Amino acid sequence: MAVYTEVSDDELRAFLAEYDIGELISYKGIAEGVENSNYLLQTDRDTYILTLYEKRVAPDDLPFFLGLMDHLAAQGTACPTPIHGRDGDALRKLCGRPVAIVSFLKGMWPRRITPRHCGLLGEAMARMHIAGQSFAMTRPNNLSVAGWRPLFEACAERADTIQPGLAAELGAELDGLESHWPRDLPAGVIHADLFPDNVFFLDGRLSGIIDFYFACNDLFAYDLGICINAWCFEADGSFNITKARHMLSAYRKERPFSAQELEALPLLARGSAMRFLLTRLYDRLHHPDGALVKPKDPLEYLRKLHFHQSVRGPDAYGLE
Amino acid sequence: MAVYTEVSDDELRAFLAEYDIGELISYKGIAEGVENSNYLLQTDRDTYILTLYEKRVAPDDLPFFLGLMDHLAAQGTACPTPIHGRDGDALRKLCGRPVAIVSFLKGMWPRRITPRHCGLLGEAMARMHIAGQSFAMTRPNNLSVAGWRPLFEACAERADTIQPGLAAELGAELDGLESHWPRDLPAGVIHADLFPDNVFFLDGRLSGIIDFYFACNDLFAYDLGICINAWCFEADGSFNITKARHMLSAYRKERPFSAQELEALPLLARGSAMRFLLTRLYDRLHHPDGALVKPKDPLEYLRKLHFHQSVRGPDAYGLE
Repeated sequence: MAVYTEVSDDELRAFLAEYDIGELISYKGIAEGVENSNYLLQTDRDTYILTLYEKRVAPDDLPFFLGLMDHLAAQGTACPTPIHGRDGDALRKLCGRPVAIVSFLKGMWPRRITPRHCGLLGEAMARMHIAGQSFAMTRPNNLSVAGWRPLFEACAERADTIQPGLAAELGAELDGLESHWPRDLPAGVIHADLFPDNVFFLDGRLSGIIDFYFACNDLFAYDLGICINAWCFEADGSFNITKARHMLSAYRKERPFSAQELEALPLLARGSAMRFLLTRLYDRLHHPDGALVKPKDPLEYLRKLHFHQSVRGPDAYGLE
Repeated sequence: MAVYTEVSDDELRAFLAEYDIGELISYKGIAEGVENSNYLLQTDRDTYILTLYEKRVAPDDLPFFLGLMDHLAAQGTACPTPIHGRDGDALRKLCGRPVAIVSFLKGMWPRRITPRHCGLLGEAMARMHIAGQSFAMTRPNNLSVAGWRPLFEACAERADTIQPGLAAELGAELDGLESHWPRDLPAGVIHADLFPDNVFFLDGRLSGIIDFYFACNDLFAYDLGICINAWCFEADGSFNITKARHMLSAYRKERPFSAQELEALPLLARGSAMRFLLTRLYDRLHHPDGALVKPKDPLEYLRKLHFHQSVRGPDAYGLE
């Protein structure tokens, strides 16, 4: 939960004069999201989300993120639509920070995930991947394989304070991932952070995908690897093959996998587990006292990594 | 900012079936309030606030708080109205906690306070005091003069770590307050926590008073003492007599002061400064590491206390 920047009512009212969205009647800081400050705005016309981009988001990346949302929304993806000011600009400044207003999406993110949620996610993800193919801008994924070594090195010395032997184990896994990481699979714009709290459902349908602030160009199947980890494990650490089957089957009805993509799935899932393990480890070891966000458990992702190391092939994810 | 209890979408949907407020379309944790967990609910009919009462609120006090809001709203006070379930009950259980839904109030709390805000507050406070006189329930103020000694004793040993000499100074002030505290002034239900973030304004009018979870029976003029401290000092610590004059003048147009009340104002303002100084000091000294709420500065209230100690009489607050 997080609101890092306090916006005053006077500042906000003056700021909103640059938009044609009606008169402000309320705004509340939202206790969701960990990277940015988010406010729910109500005007006499509609409800909106105001986001102030905090220091973990590079300002130079914002035109990509906002342009992508504009593009995907125009292609029919249920995602927030950036609201453009009277001058046409969607990206502005408030309280010294880059800021944007986006449309509000109805729906709730699922706390208890069912195979049906996973199927709806797979379908929407595939359609989003296809919709992104006509988006002109690009952004490299700085949290893909090339980004893991520097993160590992920033954590290696103290990693064993979290679990004895962790540094050696992650070093060996990283060597393997770097040697075998696939390069020639179908690629395009991926979301790269499709955790359940970024996907809304309403009345049994997927009603929205939010938080595109890790979106980048990378292998499509890597997005699936991220979602296998984020959606298909139970709280006790066990893998739910039914959820994975629903997700992958629904995905490939919209965008069929190549044989190479299918074959690479276990490795991509290992890589995705490594990515979240390393960023969580980094946050845990470099967690400033008094931060507003409780760091997440890196070892959850070590257990997921172990699962993917143990599988014999992509049929472990429920596919024939 | 705070959401202490995570409510799942399934639990919430089942819970809302007990109300006749429409179908849930969204809910977000609100990063406001420090005592309880608050969610903004949107249904297909209206917007509401869901509050889960956390451990600082005594469950036995909740019928008083909710009954008071019902009563005040019926008397025309702009305050949240508890929503009663199909069985008539407003106070229920969710996630093992007492919980209530109240109506959503439009408006924003003022970050930059003007004399006009203070005047509108004074008028609304007086009307609220009058409206509360016909409320049948009572609740003693456990944070009035009798409650300060135990708080002081829990802090005395370590108070000087905050500022050298603080324990001795507060001990002496407390002796004086206990000896001279007035007993026979007009009393009734007071809000007791009317800080700016609990008062909403919209279109130049006061649109709502929220957060009645410190409300109690006490001297009416003590509520004014609290508001003088909370609304009439500038960020640099200086006292703004214009704001106080607006507040007190508007108040006494609605409910005239007795001569005794007027005379007691400096002492009541000292007591109010002591009350917030002590609770802030307690929170600072007993602040658990990793708490989600940053403790407020107790010394801000020491400076306010010094101001009220220095005044010669109630004309220091702008009244003739």
